[in-house]
Amino acid sequence: MTQHVDIREVSLRDGLQIETPIPLSAKLELLAAVAATGVREVEATAFVSPSKVPSMADAAELAAELHNYPDIEFSALVASRGGARRAIAAGLRAIEYVVAADDGFSTANVGRTSAEATDQIGDIVTIAHGGDVTVEVIVATAWDSPFEGPTPPQRVLDIAAAARDQGADRFSIADTIGTATPGRVTSLIAQLRPVIGDLPLGAHFHNTRGAGLASAYAAVSSSVTRLDASVGGLGGCPFAPGATGNIATEDLVYLLTDSGIDVDIDLQAAIAAADLAKSVVGHDLPSALLRAGDRIRS
Amino acid sequence: MTQHVDIREVSLRDGLQIETPIPLSAKLELLAAVAATGVREVEATAFVSPSKVPSMADAAELAAELHNYPDIEFSALVASRGGARRAIAAGLRAIEYVVAADDGFSTANVGRTSAEATDQIGDIVTIAHGGDVTVEVIVATAWDSPFEGPTPPQRVLDIAAAARDQGADRFSIADTIGTATPGRVTSLIAQLRPVIGDLPLGAHFHNTRGAGLASAYAAVSSSVTRLDASVGGLGGCPFAPGATGNIATEDLVYLLTDSGIDVDIDLQAAIAAADLAKSVVGHDLPSALLRAGDRIRS
Repeated sequence: MTQHVDIREVSLRDGLQIETPIPLSAKLELLAAVAATGVREVEATAFVSPSKVPSMADAAELAAELHNYPDIEFSALVASRGGARRAIAAGLRAIEYVVAADDGFSTANVGRTSAEATDQIGDIVTIAHGGDVTVEVIVATAWDSPFEGPTPPQRVLDIAAAARDQGADRFSIADTIGTATPGRVTSLIAQLRPVIGDLPLGAHFHNTRGAGLASAYAAVSSSVTRLDASVGGLGGCPFAPGATGNIATEDLVYLLTDSGIDVDIDLQAAIAAADLAKSVVGHDLPSALLRAGDRIRS
Repeated sequence: MTQHVDIREVSLRDGLQIETPIPLSAKLELLAAVAATGVREVEATAFVSPSKVPSMADAAELAAELHNYPDIEFSALVASRGGARRAIAAGLRAIEYVVAADDGFSTANVGRTSAEATDQIGDIVTIAHGGDVTVEVIVATAWDSPFEGPTPPQRVLDIAAAARDQGADRFSIADTIGTATPGRVTSLIAQLRPVIGDLPLGAHFHNTRGAGLASAYAAVSSSVTRLDASVGGLGGCPFAPGATGNIATEDLVYLLTDSGIDVDIDLQAAIAAADLAKSVVGHDLPSALLRAGDRIRS
């Protein structure tokens, strides 16, 4: 098993995406707290339709502030060529291009089928690499779709092959609705490895059904070295009102560190950032450590 | 990995232990809902000091009702020879004898050191086997103590050796304060296996720091075939106010079943029992599925 996991902090994008939009100043306050954890990668925002995702309407303004944190690699999510161009113009050096594995979610989300979205990977890579920007291809609904049920693994493998062939720099699988479990995580990764070869593999889990951390640990046990998480577990799932969102950074840091796996994030600083996130959004967050506190072994 | 896990429902004992005592009629209502899940093993109560644990003061009265469920194996927790005798007199056919791995918790809990409690295993087994009753030895604070910090694994191994040598029928390890993580679970079990040989091994986790299900899956991946859980995640930890308690039966059933591991418990019935548990105790419970619902694969 890996001795080190890179955690990408996604509270500013996935965490805030379905929240009522908050002022840029509040985002910058959250960013400062997140940066203080020692995290090396942060998903800062999304360059998507402001009418569909109002909470990300300030993407360019936020991007203009990122130079204050030269030690952090910031990425932004995009769903189209236009979004990629806007992200690059705003100064981002890493973009995430999302392709849903099923047509139902893909059509609802970006107005095109999964195959149509897959076909654009090459264009996105060309645009990004032309500006010396890296591309991560993320497969949404990699295990289940809210519209179509279980995702046939072959759909994920096909997108992975396209990402590899079109020159993507990284590849990730996302449990968009929080239904993945360790057994299926292990199985999908075993099938993916021969397809993606040396491409760095990341995974993104929601804790909606309580299995997020178990799935994350299963992924790490299966060679994944990059995980997304958000402080406080910010990021509820629109398909399951009241359910928890992303796996909480501090809970993940506790679990990995206590299991003997090194991370870049300081646990106390992550708990402090979670506490700030809670006041920024004005409601309770599902993080376990935010309630129980850190009673890690001395 | 095992293809089947036996889940023991502990809501009636560990789940209710620190709750304000509820009437026997409410316990029987909860028991009926729990029995409807198809569960094969239920921890019914504890024969301990009524002044220290008022919620278990009705142990004998509850035991008198268990004959209504002939297909379920009921067990009761005891902490002394006297408790064992009372449990057997009340008709229990399986007792759990708890030995804390550290002196601080052991003394606070039962007024004797860990070594003194270990020394009584033989007497408890003699008392139980004399009445044709089985004994499970459970090590509390198997990973961490709230008083002494990390538990040296050798303490657990020594208690396991005593349990084996004194003729215990089963052996379990309990994460009393919800601090265990998958890495340490895997490590402790690997050290235990040569000591306990063929003794059936169980594990008991709390989700206090979010790692309960991940630890449970790590245990199952390491040859454990018996897990404790409580519907709704009933059972807060007195050392972490507001924190979640036992791992929730329905969340565990979802995770295991979706991972391809068979259990005896029906998921929808477990969610219904969790919903009932919530109204019985009159407050929210930490279960994830109770909020998110079952969106298991068809």
